[in-house]
Amino acid sequence: MRFFSDNAAPACPEVMAALHAANRLDTAYDGDEWSRRLDGTFSELFGTDVAALWVATGTAANALALAALCPPHGSIVCHRDAHIQNDECGAPEFYTHGAKLLLAEGIGAKLTPETVTALLDSVRNDVHQTQPHTLSITNATEYGLVYSADETSALGALARARGLNFHIDGARFANAMVRTGASPADLSWKAGADALSFGFTKNGGMSADMLIFFKPELKAAALYRRKRAGHLLSKGRFLAAQVLAMLDDDVWLRNARAANAAAARLAEAAGPERLLLPVEANELFIRATPAEAQRLRAQGFDFYDWGPGEARLVTSWDTDPAAIDELAAAIRAL
Amino acid sequence: MRFFSDNAAPACPEVMAALHAANRLDTAYDGDEWSRRLDGTFSELFGTDVAALWVATGTAANALALAALCPPHGSIVCHRDAHIQNDECGAPEFYTHGAKLLLAEGIGAKLTPETVTALLDSVRNDVHQTQPHTLSITNATEYGLVYSADETSALGALARARGLNFHIDGARFANAMVRTGASPADLSWKAGADALSFGFTKNGGMSADMLIFFKPELKAAALYRRKRAGHLLSKGRFLAAQVLAMLDDDVWLRNARAANAAAARLAEAAGPERLLLPVEANELFIRATPAEAQRLRAQGFDFYDWGPGEARLVTSWDTDPAAIDELAAAIRAL
Amino acid sequence: MRFFSDNAAPACPEVMAALHAANRLDTAYDGDEWSRRLDGTFSELFGTDVAALWVATGTAANALALAALCPPHGSIVCHRDAHIQNDECGAPEFYTHGAKLLLAEGIGAKLTPETVTALLDSVRNDVHQTQPHTLSITNATEYGLVYSADETSALGALARARGLNFHIDGARFANAMVRTGASPADLSWKAGADALSFGFTKNGGMSADMLIFFKPELKAAALYRRKRAGHLLSKGRFLAAQVLAMLDDDVWLRNARAANAAAARLAEAAGPERLLLPVEANELFIRATPAEAQRLRAQGFDFYDWGPGEARLVTSWDTDPAAIDELAAAIRAL
Amino acid sequence: MRFFSDNAAPACPEVMAALHAANRLDTAYDGDEWSRRLDGTFSELFGTDVAALWVATGTAANALALAALCPPHGSIVCHRDAHIQNDECGAPEFYTHGAKLLLAEGIGAKLTPETVTALLDSVRNDVHQTQPHTLSITNATEYGLVYSADETSALGALARARGLNFHIDGARFANAMVRTGASPADLSWKAGADALSFGFTKNGGMSADMLIFFKPELKAAALYRRKRAGHLLSKGRFLAAQVLAMLDDDVWLRNARAANAAAARLAEAAGPERLLLPVEANELFIRATPAEAQRLRAQGFDFYDWGPGEARLVTSWDTDPAAIDELAAAIRAL
Repeated sequence: MRFFSDNAAPACPEVMAALHAANRLDTAYDGDEWSRRLDGTFSELFGTDVAALWVATGTAANALALAALCPPHGSIVCHRDAHIQNDECGAPEFYTHGAKLLLAEGIGAKLTPETVTALLDSVRNDVHQTQPHTLSITNATEYGLVYSADETSALGALARARGLNFHIDGARFANAMVRTGASPADLSWKAGADALSFGFTKNGGMSADMLIFFKPELKAAALYRRKRAGHLLSKGRFLAAQVLAMLDDDVWLRNARAANAAAARLAEAAGPERLLLPVEANELFIRATPAEAQRLRAQGFDFYDWGPGEARLVTSWDTDPAAIDELAAAIRAL
Repeated sequence: MRFFSDNAAPACPEVMAALHAANRLDTAYDGDEWSRRLDGTFSELFGTDVAALWVATGTAANALALAALCPPHGSIVCHRDAHIQNDECGAPEFYTHGAKLLLAEGIGAKLTPETVTALLDSVRNDVHQTQPHTLSITNATEYGLVYSADETSALGALARARGLNFHIDGARFANAMVRTGASPADLSWKAGADALSFGFTKNGGMSADMLIFFKPELKAAALYRRKRAGHLLSKGRFLAAQVLAMLDDDVWLRNARAANAAAARLAEAAGPERLLLPVEANELFIRATPAEAQRLRAQGFDFYDWGPGEARLVTSWDTDPAAIDELAAAIRAL
Repeated sequence: MRFFSDNAAPACPEVMAALHAANRLDTAYDGDEWSRRLDGTFSELFGTDVAALWVATGTAANALALAALCPPHGSIVCHRDAHIQNDECGAPEFYTHGAKLLLAEGIGAKLTPETVTALLDSVRNDVHQTQPHTLSITNATEYGLVYSADETSALGALARARGLNFHIDGARFANAMVRTGASPADLSWKAGADALSFGFTKNGGMSADMLIFFKPELKAAALYRRKRAGHLLSKGRFLAAQVLAMLDDDVWLRNARAANAAAARLAEAAGPERLLLPVEANELFIRATPAEAQRLRAQGFDFYDWGPGEARLVTSWDTDPAAIDELAAAIRAL
Repeated sequence: MRFFSDNAAPACPEVMAALHAANRLDTAYDGDEWSRRLDGTFSELFGTDVAALWVATGTAANALALAALCPPHGSIVCHRDAHIQNDECGAPEFYTHGAKLLLAEGIGAKLTPETVTALLDSVRNDVHQTQPHTLSITNATEYGLVYSADETSALGALARARGLNFHIDGARFANAMVRTGASPADLSWKAGADALSFGFTKNGGMSADMLIFFKPELKAAALYRRKRAGHLLSKGRFLAAQVLAMLDDDVWLRNARAANAAAARLAEAAGPERLLLPVEANELFIRATPAEAQRLRAQGFDFYDWGPGEARLVTSWDTDPAAIDELAAAIRAL
């Protein structure tokens, strides 16, 4: 029973079925019937006109979004622990052609208007420093916290006030949705977002994430950037079909609910003493001495050590309830 | 019956089966059991130590290869009609950070030592011009011709003599293999190639191509480049599994043979008068007046117009023999 | 007596005097009194509001202009023999982050609406090809021809009709001015130009060229690009002072006239038979057998061989009239 | 009397004389007699074979050095207050094509083996993070401290132990030399440096800095990078001549001594209470209330406010001793 990452989980049955259904000749690239439905389907989901591009990874979605929102000579404000800073090997710098990331603070990888303001105020407004053009947050965060609609709006308002574009890395957007109960619109464009990396892979897809532009005029250039990055898959229908299958019957929400629920049960078992941070999505950061961690592993549970005396456990859409019961019991027994 | 591109064909049954077999939790990225077999499997196939990286597109394979083989201030010699020049929206320039493509001549998108030499000799050896660092050919070419092992070797020898790295875009490498009867080694490293983009998608995969380095020391940097390009898929096992399934029992060769055979039958039907170029792989370029093209389309055959009075037809691994019979008859009847 | 290049000539006396006059403490970068006069002075010269940035080289001016006028995923139409293609080691690709140069034809490195149209029409309007965003011409051309105001306007109109930005590499703009008798405005923004690389170095400066934007809103980003390229000199007043000194009393036109006149006298001596191209600025391309070239060199004249049996001679602002007489006589005597 | 920056000072008389002496026709670019002497002259100065390239700015020297020492997918360790991080508008990111700067700590912008080690140890050694390839320090630092030969060596040894290249930003290398009494060799290659940005502009040049490679094999690619960055000035002899003039008779050391001495006198006047940091080169950071700063300004002294209640004063090669006396008195009188 492995709790390393939702990244490693299988694809859900609806996705596999969709791949079969799409396994027939159709127009290459994004000219097929599935890909052509994406703008419409996502516009409906968000209740506004959006442009929707599939990509194979969240890193590509983030980097393409940032390239659309920040010039090479600009900078991007994000959290010190943001995925775009620490886990993408410089993809934002590659796609933006060298924009800088400016690192702001906040508990649990969560920015606040205060921490962002403090950072912005530290930038000299002259030609010797790259000027901030974009704010990027991650919802749910890298530490499993979520931004509510209000919190997102407050950052969006700040971004607008300071002339910044606003990007949301939603690799776990579904988990944030389910937790906050907010609508997709409330957590994105109504809160001021210009672009959203909307993750499906971590949530039960095989290899499909969406880049959503709430300013549809950003799409045109992004199509060229996607192609030139080698991300225009020739049989793109297989990506589109995955995503559409997960939107049908709210599979995406079902999957996120399952992952969140599993994490919540583990959090309950761990108790507030052991938790490093509240568990709001599908990630759990706990205190565990090396001996405790060893005891869990001896029972067949695997996970990452985080800091010293800390462990990270990630649940996914398919986490077996029985395994959760066992792990919860094991944690309680520590 | 559509003959637009092998890009648009379905995935073959073995690939679909492999996706199912791989649909269980394993280590993320390329730490899974399938991905870890790739270096070994391809080293065996080529009879030498190679490094093998999966990517989701041929464009990514080409661009990563070129970035490994040419510095930003260098240039890459390729054919005027090369895919890397005309069909990748500047992916080589993006990945190499601005290297230039220098365009050489040759019939059917095929370079010769003479045309490459003529181009190289036109470059002034001073700091005001980018200096050629790499030669890139496509086998089979964009016009459906193949380089024999000897022809490839001649270019490889020239590259070595002139201090150039040597890359082969093998989006249709299988078709070239089948046509020439040469071994994978003969058409690649024994002919001097440093890197090969080895296509599986056009040949019955869903979304999997391989980047093969014959200098394994080039792999380390390429891993970082792949990640930063957003091409390190989190569930990479699904790419590796596709490729391994196509190598098993020589599915890849079976598929390529089927596509080549279909094209050969159409070529026979067309006859030498109508053919613009010999048909050596799975692409057919024919003379067809607008009226003739219209007549074919009226019978349900679809394809691209090429130049004025010209048409391109591409066969794929799954082209229905009955459809080929019908089309062959329709061409004969023009 | 060397006729290699106007690039190698000394700085004219007015420039040297200006350097002395500017050799006192003032605000660093471009905050000094000289630099602050540039926008105004050039706006007056061109009879419209322009933004004017100094740079130390024509290559920097060209590359910054192109970066302002073409996105990384776009392409730039220029002549096959353009300086930006052949003599800047990929500076346009570096500054634009990988835009492609598309090469059009024309005698004497001179584009025509027909050759540009032919090139534009050869580009497929799809995401697999970089789309042209910019047209760039050189006036005077790399082969010493000039575009008249009408010819420039015709290209400007074509650019506008096709949605292209329009850049002029005016490394020898002064020579073109003097030859055509047209006004600075007629040869630039009135003809549709968005940006002009306005050369002073070849025309008697020490190291100063200007980048002129006829859409002043392009300046803001260019200031950041210039800084990040390392082209914001801390003692920028020395560049501004050179340029202002050359504008005073029309030194720039006097210098260009001297260079053009010298070339014209040599052209007359050479006669139409020997000239490869009309001599319209300060470059001369002549037929000269190896023996003839040798004979000239034996008399102390030095120059570049061009093609086989061809030679290039370049005159500059300070070419000694006596030397021109001697060379003219020597050419006549061949 | 302005104490804003040594950047804004005039050029020293020897430099002006050298510009005149070089004001005659010679080979363009770096083929002239002055430029051709640079490798030899600097090899002698450093007592080892070096490659020496002129550039017009320190930013260009730094960015070219870093591009030679760090791949696009790597990262560069520097101080949080380094010029390359805060004052070059992303030039390192531009020239390296997107390498990341990793920010380490230390008093007075000075790194120590401990702070560098702490940073290095925080980087995960996997493909999801850019890996450090280069260490860059500034001597004298942005806060006017100097690294002794031993301190530099300790960092050089750490760099070597961790597989990092080692760059020194020596915009004020002369000031560090003079202060430490160490030889050029001791402060550079003997301490492990691979490249040095050797500043002349701040020290009395007009616009000339040197990029010194202690691995001469790094020069070849740097020549192409310099050209493609637009930094190969056509009349490069004017840069070379400035530098050679400053090396002659140790003008560079005389100038640095003058600037350091002026700062030392001001430091003495300020006294330890008022000084934020020891004054080791030509920069002075003092505590000064707004009222105190105002009082100084009222007496005709101008300078930058730094933090709240802090001021920065920079002396230069030509700071008038009388002005220093006056300012010293004024500071004492606060």
